[in-house]
Amino acid sequence: MVIVKIGGNVLDNPDRLHGFLVDFAQLPGPKLLVHGGGKIASAMGQRLGINPKMVDGRRITDAETLDLVTMVYGGLVNKQVVAKLQAVGCNAIGLTGADANCIAAHKRPVREIDYGYAGDVAGSQSINIQALEAFFAAGLTPVFAPLTHDTKGSILNTNADTIASVLATALAARHTVQLVYSFEKKGVLQDATDDNSVIPDINLHKYNELKAQGVVHAGMIPKLDNAFGALKQGVAEVLICEAEALTSINTASYSGTTLSLN
Amino acid sequence: MVIVKIGGNVLDNPDRLHGFLVDFAQLPGPKLLVHGGGKIASAMGQRLGINPKMVDGRRITDAETLDLVTMVYGGLVNKQVVAKLQAVGCNAIGLTGADANCIAAHKRPVREIDYGYAGDVAGSQSINIQALEAFFAAGLTPVFAPLTHDTKGSILNTNADTIASVLATALAARHTVQLVYSFEKKGVLQDATDDNSVIPDINLHKYNELKAQGVVHAGMIPKLDNAFGALKQGVAEVLICEAEALTSINTASYSGTTLSLN
Repeated sequence: MVIVKIGGNVLDNPDRLHGFLVDFAQLPGPKLLVHGGGKIASAMGQRLGINPKMVDGRRITDAETLDLVTMVYGGLVNKQVVAKLQAVGCNAIGLTGADANCIAAHKRPVREIDYGYAGDVAGSQSINIQALEAFFAAGLTPVFAPLTHDTKGSILNTNADTIASVLATALAARHTVQLVYSFEKKGVLQDATDDNSVIPDINLHKYNELKAQGVVHAGMIPKLDNAFGALKQGVAEVLICEAEALTSINTASYSGTTLSLN
Repeated sequence: MVIVKIGGNVLDNPDRLHGFLVDFAQLPGPKLLVHGGGKIASAMGQRLGINPKMVDGRRITDAETLDLVTMVYGGLVNKQVVAKLQAVGCNAIGLTGADANCIAAHKRPVREIDYGYAGDVAGSQSINIQALEAFFAAGLTPVFAPLTHDTKGSILNTNADTIASVLATALAARHTVQLVYSFEKKGVLQDATDDNSVIPDINLHKYNELKAQGVVHAGMIPKLDNAFGALKQGVAEVLICEAEALTSINTASYSGTTLSLN
């Protein structure tokens, strides 16, 4: 089973997105897609006079921003991706964490910063695995927007990398799961200014070294932390690669980064 | 099985909507909800500088309006309704016609008027009944936004009454189906200015008489045409009533309109 996260800079580019979705549709076996959409939400917010409020790369989700991301992630982006996948032979079903109670979360507690309607997922026990299995059994491919719910009536804004990792972890209890973070870069880079400096393999020991040396770019750290968290909880393999590398992931020509514990 | 359509003037009113969703959650047995959202889309469109273009009560859906309704119907309204239903014990799943290929449609042909990305549904053969049955079998309650897809990659804007009627017709092949159009009025009115002039029963003969006499309000005709179309294709009963009447529909205290063929 393959869980793929697709990043915002690919979603934003119609040609790249189309190529990616054609490739995704061709992946054999059960699969699941998680998408972001922050750049599209920011652009729509600007048209509505809602300015993005970010702290450490995380969006502060006040009430009007929650409506914005619910519209953009759950509606515009999710349904466009689903319709495009349907057109290339993939029977996709668009979901948020509220749908079928797939992902329950809690509003992030206010400490130094009030993140507003930001949802944290406690772990794989917050996933409705029966619903996911029913979708797979029906031949459907779940496509998740980065939204969860608090089970008390509110949608919550949740990081897409986190959603991918927690879904992969929950499914790893019953399946052999590959988790693929695909985005606009070729992999984890040794030198952030050199797109061809991909580090092919990173184990936990090497990751800690790279962090200590300051090699890993700050924006990459939450993604890698999520990835190693998933590996520790039973996910078989985590790949970080560009969107165009999707069809190569189980072949010798794969040129992205592979993460493993040992 | 009960298929309920909820109208835009109820969706627009948080208190009425909450009461309606509590009542809907309590309906016994398998059920399905279809919602509109035109007023909310128009208000959001105004903020975005997109003015509603209407001909005979139907929205002209140009490309920017398609994005607008995809966001508002498929995202904002649908996910808020789903999250609220989850909070009152109903395991809802929000869907458009693109999701799981539930409802295929075709772009309305251009004759005198170009309706743009408006989708017409050929009939119950355009419904993916297997997917719906899989959701019911999993204990899920489908909640449909008034959106379909053309199976070639585009979402289409489709009248919510039509979606309710075509879903009811498709499900009537396997289930005894009640179709309930619930909205802000008490039923079909003899006198549009008198909210208490509800006509309790209308059969096809009487409907034709009412139309000939000009008693039925113009805005009500497409709804009633849809309703009688559904009855002719096997739906057991069609009810037209206010949102607050939902819990009374199979009791002696029901005070809305009941439609039947004979």
